[in-house]
Amino acid sequence: MSIERFGVGARMSQAVVHGSTVYLAGQVADKPAGANVVEQTRQVLAQIDRLLAEAGTEKSHLLSATIYLADIASFAEMNSVWEAWVIKGATPARATVEAKMVSPDYKVEIACIAAKS
Amino acid sequence: MSIERFGVGARMSQAVVHGSTVYLAGQVADKPAGANVVEQTRQVLAQIDRLLAEAGTEKSHLLSATIYLADIASFAEMNSVWEAWVIKGATPARATVEAKMVSPDYKVEIACIAAKS
Amino acid sequence: MSIERFGVGARMSQAVVHGSTVYLAGQVADKPAGANVVEQTRQVLAQIDRLLAEAGTEKSHLLSATIYLADIASFAEMNSVWEAWVIKGATPARATVEAKMVSPDYKVEIACIAAKS
Repeated sequence: MSIERFGVGARMSQAVVHGSTVYLAGQVADKPAGANVVEQTRQVLAQIDRLLAEAGTEKSHLLSATIYLADIASFAEMNSVWEAWVIKGATPARATVEAKMVSPDYKVEIACIAAKS
Repeated sequence: MSIERFGVGARMSQAVVHGSTVYLAGQVADKPAGANVVEQTRQVLAQIDRLLAEAGTEKSHLLSATIYLADIASFAEMNSVWEAWVIKGATPARATVEAKMVSPDYKVEIACIAAKS
Repeated sequence: MSIERFGVGARMSQAVVHGSTVYLAGQVADKPAGANVVEQTRQVLAQIDRLLAEAGTEKSHLLSATIYLADIASFAEMNSVWEAWVIKGATPARATVEAKMVSPDYKVEIACIAAKS
């Protein structure tokens, strides 16, 4: 099966397609400074939309997501954006835990796996 | 490849089948209040059994598991239940780390990937 | 699709191959005592090389990696070893967060998914 990579950097690729499975790198906000978890979740999900499109698929094909929150108390705020974004009837398997991320500016990071349409 | 979802909610699906790969949502205890990590691990593994069955597979087909413990000091207790549950010779790849979960009542969360039988 | 397991133990297998996808268990240093994060990352990546070879593949086929650091402040040190190890143009999707591991001796743990060559 073929491997195709998108957003290839020295450290990671932003998306890797293996056959019909797409692995996305953990996405954090582009502009985290001063942005609350709601705004950061919006930025992260917009990046995921862009990467899925680049890889030839879309959010209705999400299979699994792992969500890291800097503060688990922001769970409901993150979910308010998440639930408005996912496609009804096509939600992925998901796990959400608290974890410190690379910069204290980051409030949320989302890594996911999708099927290629 | 087809995508089939089970336990579909507004936020996540409990199981997503893509071709012959099954992704389960992170499972936490149904009745966590007052339950120690041993009892919670039992509940979580019973839920995983049910979800795998619903998705048309079983624990002998586990490929990978990620285990989050609220307190890493409970590693041995969780393992005592885990090792009695997994099928000898058919254990999945696994990673276990400490992480805060959505409710302080939760002592363990397990997310896994399985093959469809 | 076939399932093949390597380094099968009572608790986990070190590598599980499902069709053309390889899941590795979270790898920690063999000899963590007194080893800093640079040395531990070297040990972990050498173990990943060995497991990928055993499973019939290699690091140029990495699809995804999840990196746990005991102290997120060691991100740059871990990356210095990581970036020297990965194959240019063939980097996996990746997420890195801080998490406590089973022993306080462990400074880094890496779990990954690869394609079989």
